[in-house]
Amino acid sequence: MTPTLTVALLGAGTVGAEVARILREDAEALAERAGARLTLNAVVVRDTAADRGPHIDPALLGTDAATAIAGADLVVELMGPVEPARAAITAALSAGKAVVTGNKALIAAHGAELFALAAKHGAQFSYEAAVAGAIPILRPLAESLSGDTVTRVMGIVNGSTNFILDKMDREGASLEDVMAEASALGYLEADPSADVEGHDAAAKAAILATLAFGTGYTIDQVHTEGITSVTAADVEAARAADQVIKLLAIVERTGDGVLMRVHPTLISRDHPLAAVRGAFNAVFVEAENAGQLMFYGPGAGGAPTASAVVGDLVMAARRQLAGAPEPTRLAASPLPALPVQEAVTRYALALQVQDTPGVLARIARVFADQGVSIEAMRQNIHAGDEGSAELRIITHAGAERALDATVSALTDLDVVDSITSVLRVEGN
Amino acid sequence: MTPTLTVALLGAGTVGAEVARILREDAEALAERAGARLTLNAVVVRDTAADRGPHIDPALLGTDAATAIAGADLVVELMGPVEPARAAITAALSAGKAVVTGNKALIAAHGAELFALAAKHGAQFSYEAAVAGAIPILRPLAESLSGDTVTRVMGIVNGSTNFILDKMDREGASLEDVMAEASALGYLEADPSADVEGHDAAAKAAILATLAFGTGYTIDQVHTEGITSVTAADVEAARAADQVIKLLAIVERTGDGVLMRVHPTLISRDHPLAAVRGAFNAVFVEAENAGQLMFYGPGAGGAPTASAVVGDLVMAARRQLAGAPEPTRLAASPLPALPVQEAVTRYALALQVQDTPGVLARIARVFADQGVSIEAMRQNIHAGDEGSAELRIITHAGAERALDATVSALTDLDVVDSITSVLRVEGN
Repeated sequence: MTPTLTVALLGAGTVGAEVARILREDAEALAERAGARLTLNAVVVRDTAADRGPHIDPALLGTDAATAIAGADLVVELMGPVEPARAAITAALSAGKAVVTGNKALIAAHGAELFALAAKHGAQFSYEAAVAGAIPILRPLAESLSGDTVTRVMGIVNGSTNFILDKMDREGASLEDVMAEASALGYLEADPSADVEGHDAAAKAAILATLAFGTGYTIDQVHTEGITSVTAADVEAARAADQVIKLLAIVERTGDGVLMRVHPTLISRDHPLAAVRGAFNAVFVEAENAGQLMFYGPGAGGAPTASAVVGDLVMAARRQLAGAPEPTRLAASPLPALPVQEAVTRYALALQVQDTPGVLARIARVFADQGVSIEAMRQNIHAGDEGSAELRIITHAGAERALDATVSALTDLDVVDSITSVLRVEGN
Repeated sequence: MTPTLTVALLGAGTVGAEVARILREDAEALAERAGARLTLNAVVVRDTAADRGPHIDPALLGTDAATAIAGADLVVELMGPVEPARAAITAALSAGKAVVTGNKALIAAHGAELFALAAKHGAQFSYEAAVAGAIPILRPLAESLSGDTVTRVMGIVNGSTNFILDKMDREGASLEDVMAEASALGYLEADPSADVEGHDAAAKAAILATLAFGTGYTIDQVHTEGITSVTAADVEAARAADQVIKLLAIVERTGDGVLMRVHPTLISRDHPLAAVRGAFNAVFVEAENAGQLMFYGPGAGGAPTASAVVGDLVMAARRQLAGAPEPTRLAASPLPALPVQEAVTRYALALQVQDTPGVLARIARVFADQGVSIEAMRQNIHAGDEGSAELRIITHAGAERALDATVSALTDLDVVDSITSVLRVEGN
């Protein structure tokens, strides 16, 4: 006789409705894999009168999370923002209940506190759906690579901005035009700033660092730049150099800490991340022994995200039945988060400069003064721009601090009319 | 005080030596992640006099697997072929010891028997390194996707043949020339037949099916064709059609069973698998809710494979210390393996035919008689080939049985001089 475990679902939006559907439609298969029937016994929503579709029994609807949690074996939190999700998860973990969440904002702000609470009460806590939708990242990074040392993770973790940058690359269109199209297609929120300013990717960067480096990093430790300054000219110049611009979330281990940053990045068209088109996500991992790995798939959407949630739920159920919850592991000596000035990267600059003798020498001198080595410099003189030239410079790898100081010094140079683009370059 | 778990290493070849190195060099980090120090206390080899490098203490060397197993908490099997590995693993699992192996031949031949033995004795049994080297596949398929229904897995799981086909694609070279180069570079064994005849990929196909569909499939259930019949002309024709030829291991769930096959396959150059170059591996997964996922990385090599082995070891140690080994789960009602004739696929054919009126009509009639629908037909008349023409035909999806019968009937047709190429087409 198969036992039953009851599930409280907190939140019944797009993903919650899909979780309810899968629990109902795939009940037999899930019971076999979990070792128990997973039965929804409470659904907590703000408005119990709203129609929740065919897979949620209206009799299960309620507004009281505390009662729902108390009556369930397993808790799924899909309510969205930080509160009231944080209070509900705190209550559930404190009662030793397994919690599954897809709440990236919460994990990126209060992960460490919740992991410690889970560890204290021996409660299982999983959050695969919080980063890169359906792409399995949590177990590969935290478990499959537990015998290796992850040195760096670079992710395309925001589908909307990848859709926009990919479209600019394919069609040569401007950011404004593509954003208008993305809005019309539903790829952008009414307020697109969380996507295009990089905040959504920054939350995911903090979670990737937590998975890769074993402690609780937070979104405010992530240096964040969005895509709003990327122009059609940048995309065209990248194309000419066999490169593509992607918004990357980069987290890396350095000698004595962890660096986390989100910014538009030039990568070679040969790089596996360059082939990630449209709204897809991908996470590229470098580890000392494994080498280079990549995980690719849909980063959002009701059914894909629900797949990740139900996977976590089945595993939590299986471990609960086995009598040994998966212990939440916290790094004993976590690596500190470092400021972005500690990063070592390459810069690609575009400058508008005066076309007079000696200009290149003066500009090259600025780089040399900061100890930054130039890999390539190219001057384009456009018809109609008499007296002015466009200069494109790519540096060798250097300290962010020195690169930043170089840009400041160039701004002050009288022969430089303007700096039209500053992009970082990653990969080989 | 950190406890210690002892490890018996059976086999000290390329991968075994790397496992010993990682256990020594990363001892502190592994102890923190596993919750116990992992200490090598026996290394079983055939020749105890051979030099095993700097990371294996000669005092640990011995030839008696039984004694080594009896004295260890955890067992790593990297001896290679089916025997004596099978006997050693059987002894270890029967004693309830956790076993980690990278032995694909063993799992693909006797997986079901070993899984049942592990389940019976409550022993942990993991084999991440047996398929696609360092690429995390085991936990993503068996755990992360446990809330979903995997419908299909297509893998590039043999690096040598991918290196060869990629080189043919990039350089237009012949199979013979590229094989000679691959041998010189060490990408091919002295006897390359396990690679180029598809047997290595077939063993991995059986393991992928086991992970995706939850029971023990075997290599003899996999329909296997290698790359020896792929010509430079096939590669060139694929290129002209914006396609690329890859050796794919394809396992899929059909209505009432599981189909497993390995063969050279035409895929669109837009498909994520098309971008897998050189000796890299990738596993492309389709699941009902998650959609399309891909896992990419190095498929072989000492350090990458050892990364997978040590990852399994850390997880086995962690679960053993938690007092609840990861239970081996066997499907209660496994889907039967089906013969390849049940497959539904598309064919791309190249024929040498007589260039006389009515030939196309007669050939089209053969397809119609078998109920196979033609998607595209193209006739090329080459200079100097008077009276003869090359015909390239791509079909719509049809039953393998009907496609096979069509090829037989074409062979018998008097206007067909020869069938120069038969390739299957997958993906959109």
